[in-house]
Amino acid sequence: MLSFELFAKEDDARAGKLITLHGLIETPSFVIVGTQAAVKAVSVKDLRKIGIQMIIANAYHLHLQPGENLIEKAGGLHRFMGWEGPLMTDSGGFQIFSLGAAREHGVGKIASIFPEQRDRGGHFNSKKRKPLVRVDEDGVDFISYLDGSLHRFTPRRVVELQLKLGADIILPLDECTSPLHDYQYTKAALKRTQRWALQALEEFHRRPNKSQALMGIVQGGAYQDLREQCAQFISDQGFDGYAIGGSLGRSKMDMYHVLEWTNPILPQDKPRHLLGIGEIEDIFEVVQRGIDLIDCVLPTRMANTGTLFVKGAKHFRIHIYNMQFKDDLRPVEQGCICYTCRHYSRAYLRHLFMAKEPLATHLATIHNLYFIESLMKQIRVAIKEKGFKQLKEEWLSSS
Amino acid sequence: MLSFELFAKEDDARAGKLITLHGLIETPSFVIVGTQAAVKAVSVKDLRKIGIQMIIANAYHLHLQPGENLIEKAGGLHRFMGWEGPLMTDSGGFQIFSLGAAREHGVGKIASIFPEQRDRGGHFNSKKRKPLVRVDEDGVDFISYLDGSLHRFTPRRVVELQLKLGADIILPLDECTSPLHDYQYTKAALKRTQRWALQALEEFHRRPNKSQALMGIVQGGAYQDLREQCAQFISDQGFDGYAIGGSLGRSKMDMYHVLEWTNPILPQDKPRHLLGIGEIEDIFEVVQRGIDLIDCVLPTRMANTGTLFVKGAKHFRIHIYNMQFKDDLRPVEQGCICYTCRHYSRAYLRHLFMAKEPLATHLATIHNLYFIESLMKQIRVAIKEKGFKQLKEEWLSSS
Repeated sequence: MLSFELFAKEDDARAGKLITLHGLIETPSFVIVGTQAAVKAVSVKDLRKIGIQMIIANAYHLHLQPGENLIEKAGGLHRFMGWEGPLMTDSGGFQIFSLGAAREHGVGKIASIFPEQRDRGGHFNSKKRKPLVRVDEDGVDFISYLDGSLHRFTPRRVVELQLKLGADIILPLDECTSPLHDYQYTKAALKRTQRWALQALEEFHRRPNKSQALMGIVQGGAYQDLREQCAQFISDQGFDGYAIGGSLGRSKMDMYHVLEWTNPILPQDKPRHLLGIGEIEDIFEVVQRGIDLIDCVLPTRMANTGTLFVKGAKHFRIHIYNMQFKDDLRPVEQGCICYTCRHYSRAYLRHLFMAKEPLATHLATIHNLYFIESLMKQIRVAIKEKGFKQLKEEWLSSS
Repeated sequence: MLSFELFAKEDDARAGKLITLHGLIETPSFVIVGTQAAVKAVSVKDLRKIGIQMIIANAYHLHLQPGENLIEKAGGLHRFMGWEGPLMTDSGGFQIFSLGAAREHGVGKIASIFPEQRDRGGHFNSKKRKPLVRVDEDGVDFISYLDGSLHRFTPRRVVELQLKLGADIILPLDECTSPLHDYQYTKAALKRTQRWALQALEEFHRRPNKSQALMGIVQGGAYQDLREQCAQFISDQGFDGYAIGGSLGRSKMDMYHVLEWTNPILPQDKPRHLLGIGEIEDIFEVVQRGIDLIDCVLPTRMANTGTLFVKGAKHFRIHIYNMQFKDDLRPVEQGCICYTCRHYSRAYLRHLFMAKEPLATHLATIHNLYFIESLMKQIRVAIKEKGFKQLKEEWLSSS
């Protein structure tokens, strides 16, 4: 079950609401990553207080540990992890990518983000890493990074796995190509992914399940004709919504182009999720191009390493380990009303990180998540009031 | 400011209340260790919900990082760490011990707890570790374990340091000898510690401070005459309460003897704190011998390594990593109403620990602290109802 309603637009930016069996998500929304059925050191009680609307866990990781059968026995993922709100699971497609070709190519969703894996001449060094994955026409064989055991994913099995987990929104198995794959490979992979999408949809409808929704994934690398063809193909199949997957090219401009090719083709009346993107600047750019949902590890991963969101700071962040915060008794962000900012100083947070106290990650995550939720709320209000462009300008010029 | 009122006794076991400027502590109470101004991954908001009454931080560690001057500038330790309830600071005496003689001797407060540092012949191998501390008649020189910088503690400086921190109860600098020190050394160290106690008390009274209280520390190793002499000496000085420090001998029986020698001499009308002891069995044994306050890292340290308190389990604990909990969908402890037990299964907790999710420590700490608080509450009620011995028997026979 998934219903989606749009109630405001400003050019291509959209504000709406998405209704799942476990509650409502106001869009645009940032879906918080809880890969292994947990969000860093923050309990679901605190996530609810922060205003988190939806969490995305990962079917691939949960399959390897603790296994979908245990989670099903526990009453499903909501019950297992104590989160009664809306929940998504990603299929594992990106893991094929990140343990397979991306490992070989030394790249991420956008080629430039892994520059440290280039060799001295600036070329990617493919010998550094061995892939753990082998893709064939019917599915994927992969080796568990935990214990070396061999596993096989097929589109049907991945649907079955996610039905056991029971998240409100699930995704089909796809192959996420590398920005370094050429046109021919990307096209062949896309054909596979589209065939897999149909198998997933068939498997999904074969099961008597009315509580979950299946989104289709648009792939096609940074090639305009492939993206357009795929967007049309996926639009025609009757999915409950659309996810846009990477590779998204070699630069942020490439990523924006992908959205500009894809979104006009996707039906207006269903939600669009851009997978795995979430820098502050990106949030504005992709919402402007018609995206309703995004997810990214950034807020939690940054919190874990002492990097905190601050509006007006360079790149919207401060690194709390810096000496300049040693005696800084101001909150992380002036005016922020999150639990961390209401009770603690930068100096205290820095002390916790320096002292390796686990409370550091807990408090930093609370702030970063609150910051993102608060930004998304501002964006939603702005779209309703036709002030999105102004908000974007105000934010992007502040950094 | 510290007032203490006893309102029930069962033989030597006492129930009472201790009033500080930051609130009331019902005794017997387990003081939770927050060495570096933080309690593992648990915020003070959650500590309050659990019912934690008092936290003990460490002046030695806070001096090294972030420094008492910053904490004073922040408005004191309560404000710095966001804890508005009662707070103690330990002086650093135990650190002299644990970085000095205990390092040389390879022992803890009770000799037998570090058996792995004995050599093949069963003797302690003193060459394995170098002390970072040098004690003289007027104080202690020590090297920071953080950056190798040289520091000096004197009894007066340590009072000054703790006045800056501003905890409700503070402790004088003492020398905590090793269980392997002989009578002569222990006696000489005790003389020093007693001279230091007078200097600390004088310094404390010289300052215009009415909000804090200074406890005296009874030392003397496992030697009856030294313990008795010291208990009498400390009783005569007008401290606001009494702490009993280690070494506490080579076995738990030695520790119980130390209490049996000491407590009858200490004035009835002031609180008695046993420093650094906290196994479940110990809690009953020391309360039975007239102790009002204890503190120990056990509940938090255990939580960090996946060990959870369960009444009725062997040694009152389960190790959640064990395979037997893989599919165990029961709460950590049947009937426990802590946040963790109300929302999560053993299987989920095991998954979090296996997956190295930081939420694991957060949830495990909440349970262990709740378990201890709940036990202490039962003990207080039992003493009031003359049912302490029965409660002790019921608990100790359950494990």
